[in-house]
Amino acid sequence: MIRIALDAMGGDHAPAETVKGAVLASQEYPDLEIILVGNPDKINAELNKYKNKGKLPVVAASQKIEMGEHPAQAVKQKKDASINIAAALVKEGKADAIVSAGNTGALMAATLFKLGRISGIERPAIATEFPLPAGKVLLLDMGANVDCKPKNLEQFAIMGSLYAKHVLHINNPRVGLLNIGEEKEKGNELTRESWPLLKNAPINFIGNVESKEILKGGADVIVCDGFVGNLILKFAESLAASVFNILKTELSKGMINKLGIGLLMPTLFKIRKKLSSDDYGGAPMLGVNGVVFKAHGRAKAEAIKNAIRESAEAVTGKMVEAISHAGDTK
Amino acid sequence: MIRIALDAMGGDHAPAETVKGAVLASQEYPDLEIILVGNPDKINAELNKYKNKGKLPVVAASQKIEMGEHPAQAVKQKKDASINIAAALVKEGKADAIVSAGNTGALMAATLFKLGRISGIERPAIATEFPLPAGKVLLLDMGANVDCKPKNLEQFAIMGSLYAKHVLHINNPRVGLLNIGEEKEKGNELTRESWPLLKNAPINFIGNVESKEILKGGADVIVCDGFVGNLILKFAESLAASVFNILKTELSKGMINKLGIGLLMPTLFKIRKKLSSDDYGGAPMLGVNGVVFKAHGRAKAEAIKNAIRESAEAVTGKMVEAISHAGDTK
Repeated sequence: MIRIALDAMGGDHAPAETVKGAVLASQEYPDLEIILVGNPDKINAELNKYKNKGKLPVVAASQKIEMGEHPAQAVKQKKDASINIAAALVKEGKADAIVSAGNTGALMAATLFKLGRISGIERPAIATEFPLPAGKVLLLDMGANVDCKPKNLEQFAIMGSLYAKHVLHINNPRVGLLNIGEEKEKGNELTRESWPLLKNAPINFIGNVESKEILKGGADVIVCDGFVGNLILKFAESLAASVFNILKTELSKGMINKLGIGLLMPTLFKIRKKLSSDDYGGAPMLGVNGVVFKAHGRAKAEAIKNAIRESAEAVTGKMVEAISHAGDTK
Repeated sequence: MIRIALDAMGGDHAPAETVKGAVLASQEYPDLEIILVGNPDKINAELNKYKNKGKLPVVAASQKIEMGEHPAQAVKQKKDASINIAAALVKEGKADAIVSAGNTGALMAATLFKLGRISGIERPAIATEFPLPAGKVLLLDMGANVDCKPKNLEQFAIMGSLYAKHVLHINNPRVGLLNIGEEKEKGNELTRESWPLLKNAPINFIGNVESKEILKGGADVIVCDGFVGNLILKFAESLAASVFNILKTELSKGMINKLGIGLLMPTLFKIRKKLSSDDYGGAPMLGVNGVVFKAHGRAKAEAIKNAIRESAEAVTGKMVEAISHAGDTK
């Protein structure tokens, strides 16, 4: 049985949606044990709303780290924070993975303090599966490392490739380097110096990928520094929402449009869902010596459920072992 | 009379669309003189298609620089390239501004060789007016400088602010620094070190702006390095196109949707136009000692016409003088 420690207190909609997500996951994946970490009174109050639910033990944590707190400081000062307790469960062998929708930096700090880095990996990275019109693409780093060296991008590429292979079950994943031109001499100092490292890495490197190519599905894994990755990810979310708003506004003008939009409403809502972050699920923190998934701060139950499923798949797929092995051979 | 030197041979649709754009501009703005620079036979063949047109003298250039060529090399080797001749017209006082839809790097190189930099400006930047649901925002740099120092971002901020004020007629333009968090200590080394410089610059600095805020119109000018700017710009273009394609595909499914989409078609096309790059017009190269506008490589007549109008407005607004004056006071 795979045991997932869920930070029940993390995220904008915690604990209501985190607990609901755990309940949904326990119904859908009955062979998982989901450990709810946080304030027992609040968690149980939520749990009592549901009848049919699987094994959902509660582990008490008297503190929680807020979104705005300084990650490393908060993790050190709040010893009994839900995220510290969740990390301890993995450290002590009582859980196999951690899922949290809370403060990203705190999750990274707490798990690095307790579990450490995988040997050979200089900096862990956050990878996000980005929804495409056809399928998905794994982007990393999404913000853990704002200033990177070529060596870091090389390791991100290797870890992303291994995650795509072992957890997403993509055969020989195509790995690209995000850049402003296709040719190897294009880009900034970082991408120009990273190119030859990626070319010689044990991955299926397909070269530079321009930002306009991301959505076309030409790569399975795309590597960039965390500053760029975070900008692109947040921009994409806002642009999709903005386009939907333009549509809604423009299409509500005039009688004929109103008739038309009435007919199209169900489809428009389906599209909106397609563009929303609800289906993102979680983002693995690759390079941490343990399975750690970050769910979106705005995650609701469905996204929490997906992140729980993905973390279980990372345990089954032996993600940490695969990356450790790659580190050993360097 | 303001005289614009148009690189008639530059861009994917040259000379047909460049000449057409000049004809449209000459009809709409009869007090402009648009000088068509390039192959006279080809230009005249296009010109002969139009009856009502204003003053459109042709200046011969026997060579042109292709999109894929190495900018600086091509500019040096092809002395008689249309872009070199256009730059020479400004240098010799025979034209007041240059517009080109050709190779961006070559345009920058040719104008820097011939006209030089404005005194005090270390690196020129390309600024793009990005269309928003409500209004526009000026983003720079869009790719001229892939590795920047804080000093460069400071100068981009000052130049962008002056352009917004003197050419776009925005009173006290709000200038933001593109970053992955609002707080001044957020971001990578470049943005953290640039923040205090922008804070102390003679601009209305509103602090960091996250990528998800770009579209909300909270800033008039947003500053970033050229690597990031180019990635964001190209990504936005592709995402908007992709969303439109999803819409078209999804909305074409089923009888009710087909009926609905039939009613909405005129509005959908209006929205597509809103999201397209046709209306972008041109991007000023700020810091070059002359008025230089880059039109999109895919620019058609309408976009060329807009770029011509904008370059004339930059001449009227004394853009170069304003930036020179800012440089003097440093």
